[in-house]
This record gives sequence, C-alpha cells and structure tokens, in this order.
Amino acid sequence: MPTLLLNADVGESFGAWTMGNDEAVMPYIDLANVACGFHASDPVTLRRTVRLAVTNHVAVGAHPAYPDLVGFGRRSMDCSPEEIENLVLYQIGALAAMCEAEGTRLRYVKPHGALYNDMMRDSVKLAAVMRAVAAFDAALPLMVMATRDPAPARELADGHLITLWFEAFADRAYDGEGRLVSRRKSGAVHHDPRTIVDQALRIAKGQPITASDGSELVLEAQTLCVHGDNPESIAAVRAIRQALGECGMSAQIEA
Amino acid sequence: MPTLLLNADVGESFGAWTMGNDEAVMPYIDLANVACGFHASDPVTLRRTVRLAVTNHVAVGAHPAYPDLVGFGRRSMDCSPEEIENLVLYQIGALAAMCEAEGTRLRYVKPHGALYNDMMRDSVKLAAVMRAVAAFDAALPLMVMATRDPAPARELADGHLITLWFEAFADRAYDGEGRLVSRRKSGAVHHDPRTIVDQALRIAKGQPITASDGSELVLEAQTLCVHGDNPESIAAVRAIRQALGECGMSAQIEA
Amino acid sequence: MPTLLLNADVGESFGAWTMGNDEAVMPYIDLANVACGFHASDPVTLRRTVRLAVTNHVAVGAHPAYPDLVGFGRRSMDCSPEEIENLVLYQIGALAAMCEAEGTRLRYVKPHGALYNDMMRDSVKLAAVMRAVAAFDAALPLMVMATRDPAPARELADGHLITLWFEAFADRAYDGEGRLVSRRKSGAVHHDPRTIVDQALRIAKGQPITASDGSELVLEAQTLCVHGDNPESIAAVRAIRQALGECGMSAQIEA
Amino acid sequence: MPTLLLNADVGESFGAWTMGNDEAVMPYIDLANVACGFHASDPVTLRRTVRLAVTNHVAVGAHPAYPDLVGFGRRSMDCSPEEIENLVLYQIGALAAMCEAEGTRLRYVKPHGALYNDMMRDSVKLAAVMRAVAAFDAALPLMVMATRDPAPARELADGHLITLWFEAFADRAYDGEGRLVSRRKSGAVHHDPRTIVDQALRIAKGQPITASDGSELVLEAQTLCVHGDNPESIAAVRAIRQALGECGMSAQIEA
Repeated sequence: MPTLLLNADVGESFGAWTMGNDEAVMPYIDLANVACGFHASDPVTLRRTVRLAVTNHVAVGAHPAYPDLVGFGRRSMDCSPEEIENLVLYQIGALAAMCEAEGTRLRYVKPHGALYNDMMRDSVKLAAVMRAVAAFDAALPLMVMATRDPAPARELADGHLITLWFEAFADRAYDGEGRLVSRRKSGAVHHDPRTIVDQALRIAKGQPITASDGSELVLEAQTLCVHGDNPESIAAVRAIRQALGECGMSAQIEA
Repeated sequence: MPTLLLNADVGESFGAWTMGNDEAVMPYIDLANVACGFHASDPVTLRRTVRLAVTNHVAVGAHPAYPDLVGFGRRSMDCSPEEIENLVLYQIGALAAMCEAEGTRLRYVKPHGALYNDMMRDSVKLAAVMRAVAAFDAALPLMVMATRDPAPARELADGHLITLWFEAFADRAYDGEGRLVSRRKSGAVHHDPRTIVDQALRIAKGQPITASDGSELVLEAQTLCVHGDNPESIAAVRAIRQALGECGMSAQIEA
Repeated sequence: MPTLLLNADVGESFGAWTMGNDEAVMPYIDLANVACGFHASDPVTLRRTVRLAVTNHVAVGAHPAYPDLVGFGRRSMDCSPEEIENLVLYQIGALAAMCEAEGTRLRYVKPHGALYNDMMRDSVKLAAVMRAVAAFDAALPLMVMATRDPAPARELADGHLITLWFEAFADRAYDGEGRLVSRRKSGAVHHDPRTIVDQALRIAKGQPITASDGSELVLEAQTLCVHGDNPESIAAVRAIRQALGECGMSAQIEA
Repeated sequence: MPTLLLNADVGESFGAWTMGNDEAVMPYIDLANVACGFHASDPVTLRRTVRLAVTNHVAVGAHPAYPDLVGFGRRSMDCSPEEIENLVLYQIGALAAMCEAEGTRLRYVKPHGALYNDMMRDSVKLAAVMRAVAAFDAALPLMVMATRDPAPARELADGHLITLWFEAFADRAYDGEGRLVSRRKSGAVHHDPRTIVDQALRIAKGQPITASDGSELVLEAQTLCVHGDNPESIAAVRAIRQALGECGMSAQIEA
C-alpha cells in the first residue's frame, strides 16, 4: 500500500522575528523542512525547531538555501557549482549537529526557494546539490519536484548513487509539462478545500490530474508539500491528512 | 614519552579576501584550528582548508566564534549561554560535514578569539561551550588555555563528561597566575627564536618557565599554539618542530 | 508652554519578517526612531518607513545600532570608539539618503538597544556617538536617557557642540539615581493606564515622580519613549497623547 | 581640450582583511570608486578610504553593489527594481555621510560588479539605479560603460534628468558591438604596456581602436577604468597618466 508523506517548511523565524506557526502544523506533517540559517533561522531557532520536530515525531530534513537572509532565499544568485555544493554541505552539517544534540538524525534534504527552482531548471546546479548530499551521506534522499517526466532527474541521481523523493502540490495547478503554473496567472493556486483534497488523493493513488492545458497528468510523488503559514493552510493540511488516513495512505514515518 | 602537539589557526580567508599562509604552515603542525564561517571562512574556503589539512595529515579541529565577520570574532559579544551553546554546535556541525566530504573526521574543538577569552573568564560561558561539545560528540577534546591551576576547568569538564586539551604559548610571556601578559605591555611577546624554542622545550618537558613576576610557573599542556601569519612566525614553527623532534617529543597524531 | 514629544521605535521589520505595527502607532507620535539596517530593517523597509513617517507628519530620527541582526542589536559588543563613531555615521547617512528621496530630512539621532545602554554607561562610547553626530550635522539633536543629573552628558555634548534631547519613560519605574529599574525586578513596568498617564503628565510638567527607593525624582525631559508593539501599548500611546493634549503640552513638531 | 579622467576601485578591504593597495594607486587617479559596505568595506574602512582620497585630492564616487560580501558583489542576484533602487540609495547615503565627515562631498556613482553588468544588460535595472541617483542628487553623474552606441543609455538618463559619465578600458579588448571581450577568451586582456598606453591615448583623442572582429570602434568616454591590485597594474596607471599628461589630456578634477 503506497503512502504519501506530508512535508512543510518550518523553522523560518530569525532572531527576534517570528514566521509561521510551527507548533500548529507539526502535528499534521511527516517531514519538517528545517531552515538552516542562510535564508532564515539561526542556531537557537534551529535547535528549538529540531526539538519541536522530535516531540512531534516528525522527520527532520535540511532546507538549505542561497546565502540571502534579506531576500529570504527567494532571489536567484549566480553561484558556481563549487559554491552550491559547499553551501548545501555546510547547511546540512549544521542541521545534522542539531539533530545529534536532540537525539535524532537528519533524514533528507530539500533545497529552498530560488536554489530549488534553479536546480530544477539547470542540471549543473542539480548535480552540485547531489554531490553535496552524496558527500555527506548517500543514504539521504534528495527531495525534488515531481514533473511529467522524472527520468532525467532520476538518471542524474543514479549517477550520484543517491535516492530521490518526488514532491507534488495539492494546492497548485500544473501545466502540460508537469510544472507549476506561475503564481502570477489566475487559477495557479487552489483555494477550495475540496479541490485540494481531491488533488491530494489523486496524486496519492497515482490517478491523473488535469493540467492547465487540459491534458491528463500523472505525478509520481512520494510526498506532498503543505504549508503552515496561516489558519487556512493549516486547515487544509488537516483535511488532507484526514482524507489520506481514511484511504489508508497516510503513514507517519519513523522519525 | 610525552609529546607536545602544535596547533595553528587556519582557513581564515573569506570570499575574495585571503589571510594567512596555510600552505606554508600546514607541513609543520599537528592540529589545524579551522575557522567555521562566523568570524572567517565560507563554505568553499572551509572545504578547501579541510582538504589541505587532509593532504598534510593534519588533524582538523573546529574553531568556532561569535557571529562577527567584520570584527573577526575578536569583539566580546554579550551572548546568552543558550546562544553560545548553539552557535558552537552549529559551527561544529558545518565543519564536520566538510570533514565527512573529505574522508576525515573532526578531532577537537577550540573556540576562537573573544569567545575563547570569554569562556576562560566566565565558567557559565565555558559550560555552554562544553554542552555543545558534549551534545555533538563527548569524545571530542575541548582545547582551553593552560593556566597555573587547571583544576577548575578540569572539574567542569568532568561534569560534562568531556576531555580537555590544555594549550600553551612559546612566544608569549606569562604572569604569576599563569595568564598571558597583555600584548599592550612590553615584553608580552617573545621575538627571539632561542627564547621561543627554549620556552617550548620547557613546556614540553614539564619544566618551569619564569613568569613576569619572577615566580616559577609549570604549565601542563598537551599542545602549543603557533602561528602561520608571516615568514617569521613560520620560521619559529619550524624551529620549534625541529627542537621537539630532536627531543623525541614531537608526534604527528593520526589525522 | 513646554511640550513633551512622543518618540517610538519603528521600521524594525527585516526582509520577509515583519515586526511592530507602524501604521497603527504613527498617527500618535511626533518622532519616529527609524532602524537603519544594522539591528533591523533593510533598504526597502527603510524607504517605506520614511515614506510612512512623512505621510503622518512625523519627524524622522536615526536609530543606529551595533551590527547584530540576529541579536536585534540587544547584545553589547566590545566595539572600539572608532568603530562606534563610524558605524553610527554610516547608518545616519544611509537613512539621510532615504529622507532626501522622500522629500524630508533627518531630524535627530537616538542609538538603539545595547549601543544606547553602553553609551549611557561609558562616556568614551557616548563621546564616539557624539563625534558621529557632530561630523554629520552638529544641528542634529542626540537623544539620551534623562537621569537625575543631566549635567555630565550635557557637558560632554557642549564639548562636541551638539544638542541633547532627554527622554523619559511613562511606563517604567525609576530607581533613586534616576535609572530605569531592571525589567527583571517586580514593579519595573507599569501596566495600569492611569499610572502611565499620570507619570507622563508629571514628567511633562516637571513635577517629581516617586523613585523605587521612595525618593522624589524630577526628570527633565523633552520627549517620552512610547511603544507600538501591541494593541495595549498603542492604547497607552493614545491615552498619553490625549492627556498631554488636554494640558496643552502636546505638539506635533514640524516634520 | 578634452581630458580623460582615471578611475579605480578602492576601499575594498573588509574588517581584518585587506585588498588592493590604495595608498599606491591614489596619487595617480582622479576618481576613487569607494566600496560602500555591501560587497566590501565596513564603516571604519569607508572613513579611512575617504580620508585617503581627500589627502590625495581624488574625487570620491560611490561604488554600490548587491548585498553579497562572500561573493564580492560579483554574482548576479535577481533583485527587484525597488530593491535595486533602495540598496543603491542606502549605500550612496552611507558614503555621503563619510564624505561629510571628512570635509568633502560625493561626486558620482559607479555601480560595482554584477550590478554594473546587470544594469548594462537590462534597462529596467539601469532605470532603477538612475532613480536612486536622481532621488539623492540629480547633479551626481552616473558612470556607465562606453559602448558603440551610447544613445539608449543617454536617453534613459535624460528621462531621469541625470548625467552620464562613460568609462572605457585601456587594458581590455572590445568586440564589434563595443562590449568587453569575455575574460575567458584569449586576448581579452592586454598585458603589453605599450598596447595599453596606445589604447588609452586613442580613446582620449576620440580615435578608433580595432575591435576583435576587425572593425573600427570609437568609444566616447570621459573616464578610463584602471586598477590598483598589483605592482604591474599600478605601473600601467602611471604610464597612462604620464602619456595623457604629455598630450595635455590629463586633468585632476577638483576633488
């Protein structure tokens, strides 16, 4: 029986500034993408976030980013492959130490924001990220975007002897190529809870969803990206979790 | 037969700026105190520094600091114990990942600059550093300053179940309490190579040196702090290394 | 007829993180202490904050701090006088450019957090701040804490040919020396609106308040520090503003 | 009689790290492009650099950059026009305050590194820079790259009511469009002093140089970019300065 794990970005506060509502979303997710200090977080916030994940039996993943606090890691930066490899490795290591201190261990890696987008567009950058993961621990899965054709990413991962976890979105529209419709376009984001739950279930069951060009799109995904930003998004997470549970497709992984 | 290991700060370049001459000093030291990105270094420099240490069979130690690049970690900052514990842990982890990627592992921890001075003055801060080391790997020695009375630091370390390495200086004068004479005072720094080598040998052999108040001072030390900043300091390192070798008191540890 | 100006810290958001409710407090204050990018804020936030102040006819003051975003400028840093002078000057200039762009000009300087506390304790640091103000524009008042004896600060300011504005607090208890009672002690912060308004009016009228040791304390102050952090503090600002207005002691300065 | 001003990047040290040899190059240049703290420099370095320029009667220009110390402002960042406008304005203001403190004033603006390249490629970014200059002081010239066709940049500048200074390079090859040949290609950088001096004189006199595609290229330029990185580049600056002087085309502007 396949399962679909729920992942969310957490630990995105910074110093005196808070962001998100980690306490509220943690009980409903399986995987915590923990900011590592380059786009958000700081050593104290990191430690507390890992502790919160452990308390909630949520697996900890590294959420490394470009070094851009003021831009929250959302601005593409023209980093070299050597820079990308090592900034990812640095952030993975920092978080792994926090896991060690809290009696858990790092379970996966999911790049953040512009770094995530850039690696999906540019295989040289994706390879740099993969080298970082492989150098630290080839057993750690790298989370990437599920698209219509997972073969190219999978091939690159095979070459680096690492595993991929594909992630999909229940609250976003996809285009014919299996890429997210830009947020600037109308209909890019689903707001109706039933639409969101329906898309989540279709992805979980391997059933096709309808892309923005009308074509059928099957997304092979092991995990679903959800959000803990506000009460509405947390309500959506709970609804998805419940619907998956009713189908026996929800499984808390061993954190 | 006791040995005295030589440690030096390395990897203190930052982005486009270079500092020190790591290539020149590495062949003559046993322990590389590697900057971790908070007072100096960056992910690419960190990786290259670890690789250079590995090539030279030098053991890698973490050299964590206050978050103060512009002040090079030399300015005391009023950080809380929780902040100190976690900024040390963060930096240890980042460096440990670089070690993992270069096929070696972290061997010890030596705080840098103002953090080092503050922890030697304030046992609350020293305890915070110890908690970080213990949380990451209690087998990692923490390097601290050798003073006349090592008992208080040793007791605190025992309470945290960690080991201490005491370090001494061959090129600095000591006061009667076994603390370094302030650089602002004349005679604080030795420049004569024979004086430096003599002090190194006395420390290695457990023989007393003469403190600035005329008293005899025995410093129990496992390691000597040397410098790779300039040709003179590198010449001093070579002279110390040779003198220790002639006494059979020099030993490359297994990196 | 004397007046008492109300000042508040604003513009303390940073990148994607928001802090405070500037829109809500601006209508009730005279002086906006604008964060300059070292403890909070960034160029875009700075520009918007100055524009908001201009819209509300509030005078813009620089709120420079130690370079410590993650610590929000609240941690004392052992900066040299030359460092303090120039970091204050740098931040003043950055904000002055924003003022220029928004058709207004900088009106005063009030250091933030640990820098403010350190300069009140250490006349060498206070003199460094004064040199920065004098170097930029000796006509800019420097805001400092009102204490029992304003003579030492005033003397130092006279030597630098600059003006001081003394500020007092309506919601804090004072000790016998005219210093704020530490927040760690009970009774340090007033919560009762009537107590706060009463203390504001006494300060405005030059009447004594009762210090924590029972002595009478007259605080000579040109301005009162208020807060826009939460609905309660904003309600207090409105109450103080109204009470001052009824006494004819409130005056919007020409922004 | 036309003149050709020599400009060089200076003040690119950062904290404990030094870069360049400002003392050596200052006597031979007219215009100092002073780093403003985002890609290099810090408040103390800024102040000292301005002082050094004043001592050498060199005009001070702002050299603003993307916020990327570790990348030295050389990595393109996907900043919005609002972000670019305000980060330029912030840096201009910070430097202007240092000028004020040293008894001089800011004379021009030349963006640095990736920001410079990006604005030359993207008129939306160029317009953002122009808005910053115009908002601070429309009398400040903006330095841009001389190309075969200066009309588009000039038109944009006219629309913002600001002046342009075009700069050329004596030590770089140009392609047929009047753009610098990429450093990755052979022949991109001239090393022969006679070639460099000859190209400087041709540019000064409005005579054509030969582009890499063999075509003749006339570069209309008010200033020449020179370098103070090493003894060779400083020798080249001196040779250019002397050759221009012999033709009566060198003029120290009033700093």
